[in-house]
Amino acid sequence: MTTLTNPGSSVRARDLGIPFDGEPGGLNAITDVAGVEVGFTTLVTGEGPLRIGEGPVRTGVTIIHPRGKDGAFDGVWAGRFSLNGNGEMTGVHWIDEAGAFSGPVAITNTHSVGLAHHGILRWLVRHGGFNPETQLWMLPVSAETCDEYLNDINGQHVTEDHVLAACDNATGGPVAEGNVGGGTGMICYEFKGGTGTASRRCTIKGETYTTGVLVQANFGTRRDLSIRGVPVGRHLKDNLLWERPPHVHAQGSIIAIAITDAPLMPLQLQRIAKRIGLGVARTGTPSENGSGDIFLAMSTGNEVSDMGRDVDATLRYLPSHELDPLFLATVEATEEAIINALVAAETMTGQGGHTVHAMDHEALKDVMKKYGR
Amino acid sequence: MTTLTNPGSSVRARDLGIPFDGEPGGLNAITDVAGVEVGFTTLVTGEGPLRIGEGPVRTGVTIIHPRGKDGAFDGVWAGRFSLNGNGEMTGVHWIDEAGAFSGPVAITNTHSVGLAHHGILRWLVRHGGFNPETQLWMLPVSAETCDEYLNDINGQHVTEDHVLAACDNATGGPVAEGNVGGGTGMICYEFKGGTGTASRRCTIKGETYTTGVLVQANFGTRRDLSIRGVPVGRHLKDNLLWERPPHVHAQGSIIAIAITDAPLMPLQLQRIAKRIGLGVARTGTPSENGSGDIFLAMSTGNEVSDMGRDVDATLRYLPSHELDPLFLATVEATEEAIINALVAAETMTGQGGHTVHAMDHEALKDVMKKYGR
Amino acid sequence: MTTLTNPGSSVRARDLGIPFDGEPGGLNAITDVAGVEVGFTTLVTGEGPLRIGEGPVRTGVTIIHPRGKDGAFDGVWAGRFSLNGNGEMTGVHWIDEAGAFSGPVAITNTHSVGLAHHGILRWLVRHGGFNPETQLWMLPVSAETCDEYLNDINGQHVTEDHVLAACDNATGGPVAEGNVGGGTGMICYEFKGGTGTASRRCTIKGETYTTGVLVQANFGTRRDLSIRGVPVGRHLKDNLLWERPPHVHAQGSIIAIAITDAPLMPLQLQRIAKRIGLGVARTGTPSENGSGDIFLAMSTGNEVSDMGRDVDATLRYLPSHELDPLFLATVEATEEAIINALVAAETMTGQGGHTVHAMDHEALKDVMKKYGR
Amino acid sequence: MTTLTNPGSSVRARDLGIPFDGEPGGLNAITDVAGVEVGFTTLVTGEGPLRIGEGPVRTGVTIIHPRGKDGAFDGVWAGRFSLNGNGEMTGVHWIDEAGAFSGPVAITNTHSVGLAHHGILRWLVRHGGFNPETQLWMLPVSAETCDEYLNDINGQHVTEDHVLAACDNATGGPVAEGNVGGGTGMICYEFKGGTGTASRRCTIKGETYTTGVLVQANFGTRRDLSIRGVPVGRHLKDNLLWERPPHVHAQGSIIAIAITDAPLMPLQLQRIAKRIGLGVARTGTPSENGSGDIFLAMSTGNEVSDMGRDVDATLRYLPSHELDPLFLATVEATEEAIINALVAAETMTGQGGHTVHAMDHEALKDVMKKYGR
Repeated sequence: MTTLTNPGSSVRARDLGIPFDGEPGGLNAITDVAGVEVGFTTLVTGEGPLRIGEGPVRTGVTIIHPRGKDGAFDGVWAGRFSLNGNGEMTGVHWIDEAGAFSGPVAITNTHSVGLAHHGILRWLVRHGGFNPETQLWMLPVSAETCDEYLNDINGQHVTEDHVLAACDNATGGPVAEGNVGGGTGMICYEFKGGTGTASRRCTIKGETYTTGVLVQANFGTRRDLSIRGVPVGRHLKDNLLWERPPHVHAQGSIIAIAITDAPLMPLQLQRIAKRIGLGVARTGTPSENGSGDIFLAMSTGNEVSDMGRDVDATLRYLPSHELDPLFLATVEATEEAIINALVAAETMTGQGGHTVHAMDHEALKDVMKKYGR
Repeated sequence: MTTLTNPGSSVRARDLGIPFDGEPGGLNAITDVAGVEVGFTTLVTGEGPLRIGEGPVRTGVTIIHPRGKDGAFDGVWAGRFSLNGNGEMTGVHWIDEAGAFSGPVAITNTHSVGLAHHGILRWLVRHGGFNPETQLWMLPVSAETCDEYLNDINGQHVTEDHVLAACDNATGGPVAEGNVGGGTGMICYEFKGGTGTASRRCTIKGETYTTGVLVQANFGTRRDLSIRGVPVGRHLKDNLLWERPPHVHAQGSIIAIAITDAPLMPLQLQRIAKRIGLGVARTGTPSENGSGDIFLAMSTGNEVSDMGRDVDATLRYLPSHELDPLFLATVEATEEAIINALVAAETMTGQGGHTVHAMDHEALKDVMKKYGR
Repeated sequence: MTTLTNPGSSVRARDLGIPFDGEPGGLNAITDVAGVEVGFTTLVTGEGPLRIGEGPVRTGVTIIHPRGKDGAFDGVWAGRFSLNGNGEMTGVHWIDEAGAFSGPVAITNTHSVGLAHHGILRWLVRHGGFNPETQLWMLPVSAETCDEYLNDINGQHVTEDHVLAACDNATGGPVAEGNVGGGTGMICYEFKGGTGTASRRCTIKGETYTTGVLVQANFGTRRDLSIRGVPVGRHLKDNLLWERPPHVHAQGSIIAIAITDAPLMPLQLQRIAKRIGLGVARTGTPSENGSGDIFLAMSTGNEVSDMGRDVDATLRYLPSHELDPLFLATVEATEEAIINALVAAETMTGQGGHTVHAMDHEALKDVMKKYGR
Repeated sequence: MTTLTNPGSSVRARDLGIPFDGEPGGLNAITDVAGVEVGFTTLVTGEGPLRIGEGPVRTGVTIIHPRGKDGAFDGVWAGRFSLNGNGEMTGVHWIDEAGAFSGPVAITNTHSVGLAHHGILRWLVRHGGFNPETQLWMLPVSAETCDEYLNDINGQHVTEDHVLAACDNATGGPVAEGNVGGGTGMICYEFKGGTGTASRRCTIKGETYTTGVLVQANFGTRRDLSIRGVPVGRHLKDNLLWERPPHVHAQGSIIAIAITDAPLMPLQLQRIAKRIGLGVARTGTPSENGSGDIFLAMSTGNEVSDMGRDVDATLRYLPSHELDPLFLATVEATEEAIINALVAAETMTGQGGHTVHAMDHEALKDVMKKYGR
């Protein structure tokens, strides 16, 4: 089964009565930021034992167009932070250097991240194409987390067509969560994980800004799971995974993408990217060695004059001392996006008959109640 | 009043029944790591309105000798991380480059950090002195947080003699907390803050290692305070500070120093330093713009062959995939050190009659109970 | 025409009498470091106007196995430096974090760097394969420079098979230079550029170490070219390229890979990587904005205990104060590798009939003589 | 003898006929950038054997006000780069974080860098003072190189008054070079070194910008010295220093400060700071381990809205693809500033009777001629 369309979201953390701080945007999703489009290709085929190259397949690719498909060549200001670099996000040399990049962002599995990079370029060549007067090449952003427990990762099942499809089917509006796109085969705190999103609004000097976060959540050890301060992982101890062989435990990662319409400079976006890590910390993890915890923040609040594009080279920014509401918005949206991934994901059986169970919503509600939430 | 001796610790977070994870060392302090010595000079003089240069004075200096006074020239491997660089920690260029430094570490107020740097060098010249065959100069580590709300910071009251005294009076054993040394005039989550410490033991491949943390806690907005997941700051709302003029709020910082006896490479110590930030995040802050959240991690588990010192140039290290217990130990010790600072600090009135209140221990216990702790 | 074998080197800078400092290894190549193997796939097909997807093709892929094909899963300690990040080198998050990586290194063109990443993983799966007890995934290093002036870069002509072939055909011994592998379609100081290599020996505390460098040289403006201090670019002014339309000039890059058998820690390898930039500077460039000047340094002098590999976790290193000979060796080998690329490369006509001329050896000798060299 | 006034410059590299590229500003000095003021305190007292604390003294302090004395609280955008971090430059945490700082910049000797930091704050308190509504504290930039060969560095002879004097006596106009201010006791390529400056103009999109550099040059081994590509150090071999005991050779450093009036973002200023390193490389050094090669770049082309200062939060910047002339200007000005320091410095005898000889101007001219310059 291959899902090429965005199914829309299902149960979310707030539906279970979990309390969050701050004011979300209308969709409580990264697409609350004007212009952002998200697309998925979800690959779920085969059952039974692993035969490398044949499956079973439990993977996919997620695409984010920060300025929509039509703005793929326009560029956004950006900054990144690696909390624990056991992972991949391409394109960071230029983001570190110039604080900007263009093209869609892909998130997929660890052994398809190169192909997703390749596919983005193919899509760019076909849709619009490079302008020989200005932009002769591009350095795409492609990121990954590892789904080897459920997916035939070494079969490298994501193809160019899958990437093109996710680029093409991307839309604004509600965003699917859980077992979708790159998040299809992911595991979070030893529960089924995957894709999650959330957003926050904040007001600075009379202007309201929206900050959205999308995560591919594939990290954490159950024992450490904390939801809104409640040590959930100490109570929900069924179906633990890391005690089983192979004992290469905690092989997770989290890729998080934040987009804000607040006008920020690149260095300021590096600061936003660091705050993603504090949102991750709120869910309890000490950021384990096996985890690729890599974060990207972008602003659509200014055009980018770069790589031959000669728009007006003036940038609005928020003074440093006005940034705290954005920092808090980023922490809160990240935290909620992760919990949304945990709540939306459904139990999945993959390669080798491995099963990863979804978090039990009723059990979660019971624990939260016990701690006064 | 000038306190030159280490008064020993008073009430600590565990005394109030606050539950923590992990196994602390015997003192639950940075001095649980063999060889570590801590010294303080505490300066509390004058009352009434601020007269720059005359006081009132509410400040001091904290000194940490990672290998004791006698090992001041020996060096430790080190790594650092700046979560939010609105502060100062000198010596980081060489720590970034070589992953090592020597000499004591000073923590004081923002406008005395240069003098503390100067004083460390004076102390080194007088106690042992530089060896013209090997070590011709040193690049001391001096860090700071800002006590301007209570202290005549612009009077720069810390003198060379104060630094020398703290270097000299440093000892192992219990460590004073709260209004002591560099932490004397500090504020944390709008409560009185200051110095705090904690430690953790963990076992890796049959070896037990001790990791200690000392913080100078001067950060945070009350609303954000979370203690072991309980939103304490939403309940204890007396004596808020940041709503008062001057409205330059959240002018805090946290300097945290971690020392472990686990044998680690410099890059691995950078990773430990990053985990300090996750421990800070557990107390609720989004790391505000005005905060200098700068962290240093060291290992005493190997000698350092550097700067002319020709010890055996062999380093033991822990494989990356064995580091998780140390990461968790660092997060937990940092979290507890901050809460210890909050619990130990006592109400203080300083310059301009400004008063910062201590956290009410009974009220804290009530809130914790309400949330099932 | 596709060349899958290593043709061996042709004319080199020393053959023209250009004087260099330091003592090279036996081959004056990166393969002087024991165990290093280099492989190429060179793609030269088609003529005439550009038709995207059909050619003309002037590109390829270069593969470096730091520990040979048989040591692909063993890992090397590593550090990297980006002098100007307008380019791509994947795998750097983990190199920054853990100071190590495993697998071969690929260098290709900008729009095939993802496919080369993909191909490395395919090769690893087929040759040895991942051990489910230890290494479940890998984060390959794939780097690029841009050959769009001569090559149909948007046709993405490098295939999985091309990458596999370069991985397989890699050998020790002499290394081809100029229009070979990833360097096939490259331009350097407006002359034909491409692949170059050199090495240096140095002795530290009685031990002799070998440091080799391989560059894919595709950078620089003629005016700035300096060879051994002689302003060659001011004299050899034929066939300039950047004054022609399209005026997107200086679209170059240099990827440089240094390998040493000296035992170094990761932080020390970051320092070696920085010195590559000083070698590049000796050829005159100010490191232009359009250039992706990204450098990787590795040491084979210690085994790596990481990612589940439990070799003895002890590391030998050189004290900081002994590193200068290695720094100089790196600078000198980088400088010579670039000049070797310029000297070896032959005139090439590619897409759109674009021709890039080789540097005239006799004219070069004349200029050198004029300046006393 | 204490010199508190700016003596104006003496012999410069161009006076000897050394050819440089590019167009300098009117003074060929950092003060060609409008508003920049430079001040010195030069300390030369005592003769004979070293008695720590008593001398002989050969040191000083250099002050740069990027926006003049009157603009000390206004802030400049900034970025920094450490080529080899064996040195100190305070204030970099906030420069890395916010890309801005305020206050004057000090350069002095290694063991007085803390006192210079202290002195800057004292000067700020006295001259203008902190505004309790906006700027409660400052994080000064104080940097150093090591003059222990000539100066009683452990006597820490720079006082608060010396720093205040250099802050106060700073002016625009010609800048003294050689044995002046912080450069008084410095050594460069085993010749007498010290303070040097130069500037370049470049035109981008019709606007002319000025970039000035000031160096405190105290680095390098004679053998490596290259002037405009000529291997001067191989020919001028008198009075070598590093072969004499103590054999702790190459104990140098270079601090370089670049200021431009081009409007740049902080990330772009980090790129400028990196180019300083390429200018240093042109003089031949491989950036030795013992050298603290730390560079700071600032732009006065935009106001800074930060730390409570609410100026219009709009920033002009140059698109990345327009930066090359500024990169080249920085490289060229750095190179010339270093040669100017070498040419201006005069032979000095200091502590212990150590003598460091000036470079012989006539001998230099002879070597240059031999190589066609």
